[in-house]
Amino acid sequence: MTEPAAHDSGSVPFLDAALGQSPRHTPVWFMRQAGRHLPEYRAVRGPGSILDAIARPDDAAAITLQPVHRYGVDAAVLYSDIVVPAHAVGFGIDVAPGTGPVAEQPFRSADDLERLPELTPERVEHVAETVRIVARELDPTVPLLAFAGAPFTVGSYLIEGAPSRNWRHTKALMHSEPELWHRLMARLADSAVAFIDVQLSNGARAFQLFDSWAGALSAVDYRRFVAPHSTSVFERLAERHPDAPGIHFGIGCDHLLEDMAACGPRVIGLDWRTGIADARRRLGSDTVVQGNLDPALVLAGREVALAGAQAVLDDNGGHPGHIFNLGHGVLPDSDPEVLAAVVDRVHQGSDGPVSAGDGTISS
Amino acid sequence: MTEPAAHDSGSVPFLDAALGQSPRHTPVWFMRQAGRHLPEYRAVRGPGSILDAIARPDDAAAITLQPVHRYGVDAAVLYSDIVVPAHAVGFGIDVAPGTGPVAEQPFRSADDLERLPELTPERVEHVAETVRIVARELDPTVPLLAFAGAPFTVGSYLIEGAPSRNWRHTKALMHSEPELWHRLMARLADSAVAFIDVQLSNGARAFQLFDSWAGALSAVDYRRFVAPHSTSVFERLAERHPDAPGIHFGIGCDHLLEDMAACGPRVIGLDWRTGIADARRRLGSDTVVQGNLDPALVLAGREVALAGAQAVLDDNGGHPGHIFNLGHGVLPDSDPEVLAAVVDRVHQGSDGPVSAGDGTISS
Repeated sequence: MTEPAAHDSGSVPFLDAALGQSPRHTPVWFMRQAGRHLPEYRAVRGPGSILDAIARPDDAAAITLQPVHRYGVDAAVLYSDIVVPAHAVGFGIDVAPGTGPVAEQPFRSADDLERLPELTPERVEHVAETVRIVARELDPTVPLLAFAGAPFTVGSYLIEGAPSRNWRHTKALMHSEPELWHRLMARLADSAVAFIDVQLSNGARAFQLFDSWAGALSAVDYRRFVAPHSTSVFERLAERHPDAPGIHFGIGCDHLLEDMAACGPRVIGLDWRTGIADARRRLGSDTVVQGNLDPALVLAGREVALAGAQAVLDDNGGHPGHIFNLGHGVLPDSDPEVLAAVVDRVHQGSDGPVSAGDGTISS
Repeated sequence: MTEPAAHDSGSVPFLDAALGQSPRHTPVWFMRQAGRHLPEYRAVRGPGSILDAIARPDDAAAITLQPVHRYGVDAAVLYSDIVVPAHAVGFGIDVAPGTGPVAEQPFRSADDLERLPELTPERVEHVAETVRIVARELDPTVPLLAFAGAPFTVGSYLIEGAPSRNWRHTKALMHSEPELWHRLMARLADSAVAFIDVQLSNGARAFQLFDSWAGALSAVDYRRFVAPHSTSVFERLAERHPDAPGIHFGIGCDHLLEDMAACGPRVIGLDWRTGIADARRRLGSDTVVQGNLDPALVLAGREVALAGAQAVLDDNGGHPGHIFNLGHGVLPDSDPEVLAAVVDRVHQGSDGPVSAGDGTISS
């Protein structure tokens, strides 16, 4: 567990930025920073489902810490998966390597609610143990982030049962059985709250709610079928853990920006499609923003990635409420040296000198 | 070829709506209406690449006409593919069944421009012949739509060489070799103009420019790397064919709405993420809009699809400048009877009586 002094927000760049105060440097972390692009990750990970690796606290803790050691990022993020809670309560879901979440018996009727009992802390004791190990090991200036999938995105995995590009079963259930839909969402909101609560109660100090696929919905459907449940997650966690800022993130959600911000997070996560200045114009100048370098630019090599990082910093324009991140997870082919250079550039700050060769796209 | 009388816009619902005049009923067509969801299509199509079927004018014309006969839609759309021009000039690209466009030697350097010579009409004579057959067969109140891929989307296929979810090579080329990027885009803009010109010169009466994947870009990148070239396409076609309205369409492009409209189309195509009233609020109350029923709702059955269609009509609110469509192409598992019911509902209009059972989601 971290010492009380570590909670002095003046010393923790991530928390300073999340609270809109002036951090000593722009904090940076990467979604999926502990993942396949790291050779040390592949060495620990082992074959089989990611859920097996997550179930081994020592390995999961080691993996969580790897990018902190390598990059000097300003936050660790728990090595976990958004289907962990549903798996833990015995829904019957796994993560197939190279495919993603698969459920042999997808959620299709009210009977399936029986496979989603309450997520008690005992069911995710392995996660609590990982969190405790990580929190013990971390420098107090580097908080551990909890995370969970938002009700919509988790629900879409349970309902589709396999990767989908059109969310047909999800949308069919939503529109043809709205009452059952809301019962499922409420259950998954409870689960997200319980899962994040376990992490925050054992040493995590902030959290991110991933609604990766919410962008598949129109704003009208998002407001009616999703927003109340995600709002409930943020409200309940703010009550239980008022000092732990929450981040709300989705992909391709520019059209839902106002609605996702209205769910109550302290920080709004942006993918690369939404400009930072544009987000503050729409949401208010004090808005704390996380993002948003296109992860594809990291694959394009050092110069393009650094120019892209500089463009993100320029877009933020020195605002204290900025947590640097990619606009989506680190892609598996990413070069760790390019990410290391991005971290250095962000820590140098947007006011430092930029060498001529790096300015290609921000000029 | 159509008779002069057929060009009286008072008699052609699609053209009336496209010009913002009052059509006698809301016109409707579906992207990919001539496709795998139709048993009569599967009977004609044959095995192998779609490019083979497209190269047989009699079959391509028959396929183009099938949905007009079955559904009574208000426009035919040429049975074609966005890689047809690149294939026709010998770039070396095919469409692999179940996979999509594949190029053994993707576009990666200036040398590859040599594989993109000018698209002369002779190279797509089979397409011209298909257009002539279709135009001869169609009722003059039902125009044939030409289409082509926009420079960005076609370019992304040539550059990636295989399906991509992150457009890594495309974005790398764009950012690391901007001069080459613009040469490629200019070449593909020429090709789109030439290809649509052939279709309009042989009997097509409107056109759609598909920039399916433009939504992968930020607005900043879209404006810098894409918009000038798509604008050039619309400008040149407006000069050569001032009576043929153009539609501009992309998926997940809500954040590019203003920029795509500014490229100069008469009609802006919307996917289901952008509300019709919202689009007119942003672009002006006279804006002509095409869209935007979520194709996943067609898979959810008749009631959900009809309620969704009604919600689209309600969103349009009786505005004369509305062409009904899906928000993306017809999905292969769609039930033709559901689509037929949607066409009937749209033709009945939004003011007609709606039976209680259909109002589930618009209430």
